[in-house]
Amino acid sequence: MFHHHRELAYTVRVDKPNPVFARMLQQAIGGPEGEMRVMNQYLFQAWGTRGPKKYKDMLLATGTEEIGHIELLATAVAMNLDGMPSEKVEDVVTNPLVSARMGGVEPRHFLSAGLAAMPSDANGVPFNASCIDVAGNLTANLRANVAAEAVGRTLAARLRELTDDPGMKDMLSFLIARDTMHQQQWMAAIEDLGDTFASAPNDVPDEGDYAKHAYAFFNHSDSPDAELGRWTQGASLDGKGAFAVGDPRAVAGPEPELMGGPASVHAGVEATRTNGGGRTGVVDKVKDAVDKIT
Amino acid sequence: MFHHHRELAYTVRVDKPNPVFARMLQQAIGGPEGEMRVMNQYLFQAWGTRGPKKYKDMLLATGTEEIGHIELLATAVAMNLDGMPSEKVEDVVTNPLVSARMGGVEPRHFLSAGLAAMPSDANGVPFNASCIDVAGNLTANLRANVAAEAVGRTLAARLRELTDDPGMKDMLSFLIARDTMHQQQWMAAIEDLGDTFASAPNDVPDEGDYAKHAYAFFNHSDSPDAELGRWTQGASLDGKGAFAVGDPRAVAGPEPELMGGPASVHAGVEATRTNGGGRTGVVDKVKDAVDKIT
Amino acid sequence: MFHHHRELAYTVRVDKPNPVFARMLQQAIGGPEGEMRVMNQYLFQAWGTRGPKKYKDMLLATGTEEIGHIELLATAVAMNLDGMPSEKVEDVVTNPLVSARMGGVEPRHFLSAGLAAMPSDANGVPFNASCIDVAGNLTANLRANVAAEAVGRTLAARLRELTDDPGMKDMLSFLIARDTMHQQQWMAAIEDLGDTFASAPNDVPDEGDYAKHAYAFFNHSDSPDAELGRWTQGASLDGKGAFAVGDPRAVAGPEPELMGGPASVHAGVEATRTNGGGRTGVVDKVKDAVDKIT
Amino acid sequence: MFHHHRELAYTVRVDKPNPVFARMLQQAIGGPEGEMRVMNQYLFQAWGTRGPKKYKDMLLATGTEEIGHIELLATAVAMNLDGMPSEKVEDVVTNPLVSARMGGVEPRHFLSAGLAAMPSDANGVPFNASCIDVAGNLTANLRANVAAEAVGRTLAARLRELTDDPGMKDMLSFLIARDTMHQQQWMAAIEDLGDTFASAPNDVPDEGDYAKHAYAFFNHSDSPDAELGRWTQGASLDGKGAFAVGDPRAVAGPEPELMGGPASVHAGVEATRTNGGGRTGVVDKVKDAVDKIT
Amino acid sequence: MFHHHRELAYTVRVDKPNPVFARMLQQAIGGPEGEMRVMNQYLFQAWGTRGPKKYKDMLLATGTEEIGHIELLATAVAMNLDGMPSEKVEDVVTNPLVSARMGGVEPRHFLSAGLAAMPSDANGVPFNASCIDVAGNLTANLRANVAAEAVGRTLAARLRELTDDPGMKDMLSFLIARDTMHQQQWMAAIEDLGDTFASAPNDVPDEGDYAKHAYAFFNHSDSPDAELGRWTQGASLDGKGAFAVGDPRAVAGPEPELMGGPASVHAGVEATRTNGGGRTGVVDKVKDAVDKIT
Amino acid sequence: MFHHHRELAYTVRVDKPNPVFARMLQQAIGGPEGEMRVMNQYLFQAWGTRGPKKYKDMLLATGTEEIGHIELLATAVAMNLDGMPSEKVEDVVTNPLVSARMGGVEPRHFLSAGLAAMPSDANGVPFNASCIDVAGNLTANLRANVAAEAVGRTLAARLRELTDDPGMKDMLSFLIARDTMHQQQWMAAIEDLGDTFASAPNDVPDEGDYAKHAYAFFNHSDSPDAELGRWTQGASLDGKGAFAVGDPRAVAGPEPELMGGPASVHAGVEATRTNGGGRTGVVDKVKDAVDKIT
Repeated sequence: MFHHHRELAYTVRVDKPNPVFARMLQQAIGGPEGEMRVMNQYLFQAWGTRGPKKYKDMLLATGTEEIGHIELLATAVAMNLDGMPSEKVEDVVTNPLVSARMGGVEPRHFLSAGLAAMPSDANGVPFNASCIDVAGNLTANLRANVAAEAVGRTLAARLRELTDDPGMKDMLSFLIARDTMHQQQWMAAIEDLGDTFASAPNDVPDEGDYAKHAYAFFNHSDSPDAELGRWTQGASLDGKGAFAVGDPRAVAGPEPELMGGPASVHAGVEATRTNGGGRTGVVDKVKDAVDKIT
Repeated sequence: MFHHHRELAYTVRVDKPNPVFARMLQQAIGGPEGEMRVMNQYLFQAWGTRGPKKYKDMLLATGTEEIGHIELLATAVAMNLDGMPSEKVEDVVTNPLVSARMGGVEPRHFLSAGLAAMPSDANGVPFNASCIDVAGNLTANLRANVAAEAVGRTLAARLRELTDDPGMKDMLSFLIARDTMHQQQWMAAIEDLGDTFASAPNDVPDEGDYAKHAYAFFNHSDSPDAELGRWTQGASLDGKGAFAVGDPRAVAGPEPELMGGPASVHAGVEATRTNGGGRTGVVDKVKDAVDKIT
Repeated sequence: MFHHHRELAYTVRVDKPNPVFARMLQQAIGGPEGEMRVMNQYLFQAWGTRGPKKYKDMLLATGTEEIGHIELLATAVAMNLDGMPSEKVEDVVTNPLVSARMGGVEPRHFLSAGLAAMPSDANGVPFNASCIDVAGNLTANLRANVAAEAVGRTLAARLRELTDDPGMKDMLSFLIARDTMHQQQWMAAIEDLGDTFASAPNDVPDEGDYAKHAYAFFNHSDSPDAELGRWTQGASLDGKGAFAVGDPRAVAGPEPELMGGPASVHAGVEATRTNGGGRTGVVDKVKDAVDKIT
Repeated sequence: MFHHHRELAYTVRVDKPNPVFARMLQQAIGGPEGEMRVMNQYLFQAWGTRGPKKYKDMLLATGTEEIGHIELLATAVAMNLDGMPSEKVEDVVTNPLVSARMGGVEPRHFLSAGLAAMPSDANGVPFNASCIDVAGNLTANLRANVAAEAVGRTLAARLRELTDDPGMKDMLSFLIARDTMHQQQWMAAIEDLGDTFASAPNDVPDEGDYAKHAYAFFNHSDSPDAELGRWTQGASLDGKGAFAVGDPRAVAGPEPELMGGPASVHAGVEATRTNGGGRTGVVDKVKDAVDKIT
Repeated sequence: MFHHHRELAYTVRVDKPNPVFARMLQQAIGGPEGEMRVMNQYLFQAWGTRGPKKYKDMLLATGTEEIGHIELLATAVAMNLDGMPSEKVEDVVTNPLVSARMGGVEPRHFLSAGLAAMPSDANGVPFNASCIDVAGNLTANLRANVAAEAVGRTLAARLRELTDDPGMKDMLSFLIARDTMHQQQWMAAIEDLGDTFASAPNDVPDEGDYAKHAYAFFNHSDSPDAELGRWTQGASLDGKGAFAVGDPRAVAGPEPELMGGPASVHAGVEATRTNGGGRTGVVDKVKDAVDKIT
Repeated sequence: MFHHHRELAYTVRVDKPNPVFARMLQQAIGGPEGEMRVMNQYLFQAWGTRGPKKYKDMLLATGTEEIGHIELLATAVAMNLDGMPSEKVEDVVTNPLVSARMGGVEPRHFLSAGLAAMPSDANGVPFNASCIDVAGNLTANLRANVAAEAVGRTLAARLRELTDDPGMKDMLSFLIARDTMHQQQWMAAIEDLGDTFASAPNDVPDEGDYAKHAYAFFNHSDSPDAELGRWTQGASLDGKGAFAVGDPRAVAGPEPELMGGPASVHAGVEATRTNGGGRTGVVDKVKDAVDKIT
């Protein structure tokens, strides 16, 4: 059960409203790098956690913090849209350097939301939950959370580059700091589980012949540079193997052969037999194959 | 530039075709945990990498390997659909235990694809690229890749639980081994960059007052258990701070005050003037603004 | 800023876990009729409300309540998946009557979430924010909220029909009661605004010739029954006009004539050839082209 | 069965083609507030209506009218794109005030459609049917229709604010008038059904203990202002209860306790046994379950 | 402007209601092979046609016919859901052979639509307009229409295979016949334009060196069979060249070299300078670029 | 199995980086007319082809070529973003004529990808696989491929119109030539199958009464012009019939009558009341209800 407090999670102050920056902030609300993603990711992970209570409760605590971050950003969007059609704001928007770096306004801020934030990204694409990782494995979940904070902090750092507004810089610096904590927090939780470098899920060993493929780099390119790194030499990070370069051709399987489909599929296979125009040589081979199957 | 080899990346063998299992395999093709995601993620990351060549080339090599994994799985789907309406297969599908564990068939395997794989997930939802992380920061990209392999390996492990077919178990064990390698590989690349526990992007320090918020766990819940882990004690993993429990209320910002919108927004603002209950201070400002505009 | 309480908004009890019912419940989480929609709808509306504080605060209060409803349902899903592959549960799932009424299980409950709820609907379609109404007009927002609760309550009533589990029936009866309140609440807020039967936005009158079209039913069908209701007779509900049957042909506009596009559009031989400068000029060329071809 | 008439539903005239305004108009075609939504919503509702013929026929009549509105808008888009790269049009587009208020052009108008309308919104997001409400309950359907017209009329009013073109203003004034009628029409139909203030579905009473929760405002915020409205006092609008302020804590349910999952889920449960901090009561149950399974 | 007639475009009769078949029919309504796609495709193409009137009018006529086909199918869905929970229908649904071939019911037919059709496909995925081709080139549009009818007719043929209901077989045979006509009609229109085998757009010749690449098959595989067809020998179908096998390596471009990004991008470039393994040449350039910018 | 070569499929050279043109190029990557679509379309079609090997291998060869085209375009995007905030580039971007023709930059090129390509279209809409045609019928697949290349070539021709950069013009001319080849190639393959003008699937004849509807143009409009083309006269292209104008009213079916739904559907008062057992019974009750209301 949740409760709302009137105070914001941090001070939101906009000195020079800038509708184009409002559009940029939307990426941090409804983009795959944004707060709607992490909020839902942490809460849904928590609601499905069947293990120790402390992990579930920590996920709930931080998922709840993230709802407040959506609130921060939605408020910042609305404040950047304040007085949108006024002259002062138009100065900012018609500045050619602003457009050169950020593009134009998001028309739905006016058309659909009446000068308010939308549950969308910087291009007005509505939030889509297919970017939410709810893996049902605690380590995999935590790794997904480290990743989500890494892309989120990168976004926040870039947003800070785009504004000179002191209030916005302050809010983004706070959000960057929280992203630092959350990245560190999920890494600490992985350590807490004892899984620092294990592959998730950690209860599925690679045994027998498969172990050979579990630490070999397959170079599917003609670049030798691709092999010049830690990933082809030394012990694997989980301590269970040694990195090496493997040859993908050594495990290649035979070219696949599918059965002919039944007539009810209308795949056009029967046409193969009745329409021979222009084909030579191949036709007989195909006929044989088809005859053998049907 | 790419080249196709007739051999598969591994042997695909289906002993007992099972259309319901074909549906399950779709999750590994077109779901957010699947091969279409990692293939595109690694290739697009590579195409945008502006740093050292070796990282770019490694991303290309592994992205290219993943196209071959889509091919493995698409072939496995088609083979599980072989002879779909035959009696032998219907035995499998009408087995109540099979439906109890896996649900029914994917009708579009017949209706749309004529007994072949689709670029969709196990529920027939078409692949959507919003799950692809292309963060433009090498460490963030690599963390996203660790996460993608973690959720992917977890999925493969669960798929293996659902089948007794020796060929399918063999192929999935191979894919699990490759996921092991890829998880280890991306972790090794992070170590190679010197970023093992750094927050991405690693060139954005938390300075001054913000540093306080960068290592503090904010407990937005009433559960003390949420604080009982590595994430509230000891040095932070990046070695730059010490974990602590912070009080979110200490940084709370004032309740936000938005300006009234202009009349052209048609926000229903006239209500603003007739329903004043509970407002103080802001009211006059808003009124002034509204009066000036309307 | 938000806070989480360990207690649930209501008791969740599942006497006979039923994974197929878990799938049904997903519709109330991630479908357009579900709690993710209303939670986001109310909160985003609130964050953009520029008018009187009481409406904003009420929207925040109820939006926050809805997060707790997602929690209720996600917990109910997880409990219905408890012990998914156990014999007891399989009895429920393999019951032909159950499948006849509800279809099969959602395979991603096992494959992706490891026996937990997903941010998706009953068919596994991820939540998509394009169903969220954030209209930026208070009355339009409230009407959208009445509608959301109407479809939501209808869904909850149908879910209750599908289960005999006393715990589930109890939880759904509670949610139905809350939906009653919320429907009434949004209607009461419209009354509070003085807009009970006004059209939103209420500051945009239909004047002059347009007023004629604002209360006339246009019957674009050949069925006289379509006119047999309150909507063609008596005063309009806003008290500003009288319902009548109008003739759409009376206002019909001329068949449209588009200019030919420029050659750079590559629209096709004929269209390209017809490209000219001003409007009149083009027409003749188009005519010529048409004459030559037909 | 449908029939097309060459005349448009209203005159479409564009005096000063403006490609940026063409982009704006797309919101009224393919956005959630647009005509593709209402057309499909009314027609699909009609095709599923199992009750009295007059409601079905009225839905068909108005759904059919809406197809003609898509035609109006698509024609208006094409006319605003007329001569897109000509100097005259470029004057309009390069006007900094135009960009300040509306952003730039929609590049797909040229790239994809060759100077024509797309089935998308103002940001080029393709129409997605998840915004269509087909509730299968007549009152809920009608409430959804009132809402759709309310957001649609608000959009049309804002579009009219953005243009000085007399032809476009005329067309939008007509559409606004039709939206007035349609809002009134759906309200009249609700009255016709006798459901003016009933909650949908109206055959599902809140009985016994649940009735208490059906008229109580739960204030999930710390703002007393949230309670200062019609929704906490007086008779409920359906006449079946009296509004009051309720205490959500009074109905709170116990913290949920999920069973441990089986080993086949690979949830990382083994961590359960090694990280026990802070668990009481539940721990043993989970342990037992886990031990029994693994 | 459109008009609705009470008669259906063809008789819809369902002898044995089958809710699972209702689900199948949804693919023909809201899938990419379905009627919502072709209806919108033809109408939007028509509304943007700037060339000869007859093509525009023909597109309008057939687009309008397709709305009536959605009506046919939506009616057929509703009739197949008639009496959904009755014993007679349950016999059909619980028939293991039915599930073996078609999967289960679509739960949203009950939950969301109350026994009616949805604007979705057979898996309940809402219709998405990204499958609509509005190319703004008449020949390209017509080719897209031939394709749409080809996949649509294939779907209808498969649907007919799945049912023994005489009424359903009759309706599908009618729809198959209409798909025949529409495929033939679009081909005839291409002939009418004189473009039977031209590449669209037909006003863009391949000149100079490019002409060499315009009729050469590049075999990006190691299979010689890929070259054994009409596409490597004889005159090209447009009569402008001769098919041949070309060598893709002959036109290959140099490995790309991207500039280093500026510091504001936070790409992790500093790693560039500290991890140099294997790089030569590029490194210095990148360093210079980076130094110059930062 | 796939292999990557360091060389690009063609030279990519950008003389004047233009971030706005980078946005345009995205349409050719992730739009429905783009390379991600054709790559997946050809590969998935190939993996499901059960007929003659040569078609499968050709599809694989060309699908593999298309991956290299994505690489070309992604590289071109990155090169157009090179030095994005430099003065030189800003000149290009702030040029009013550039914005007039192309709109602004794609902010996610900076925010999300750090100056690199995204798997999205020109509006930043993520690639969605619902535009991929995998029809499981060889002729239908090939027709879909002709269409995909037709819309793709049209897009490439328009992109070439938008740039003066010699390198970009060169690359696009190459891609246009390859699109010529691919359109011709798929047409040649249809000829190879003997299906040049047959309707797909070609094994489903229109017999008996249905044959009448298979070659008749139904004019669902009041425009006689719609009948003035090849599609109403002469032999049909498949040689099996003669085009004619048919009267859709001649085959019209009776107005549909749905049964009342059961009470459990909660469809609304009147509908509920009319619920009965068998068909006849219901009708009368419905009539009664209607009579009482109307």
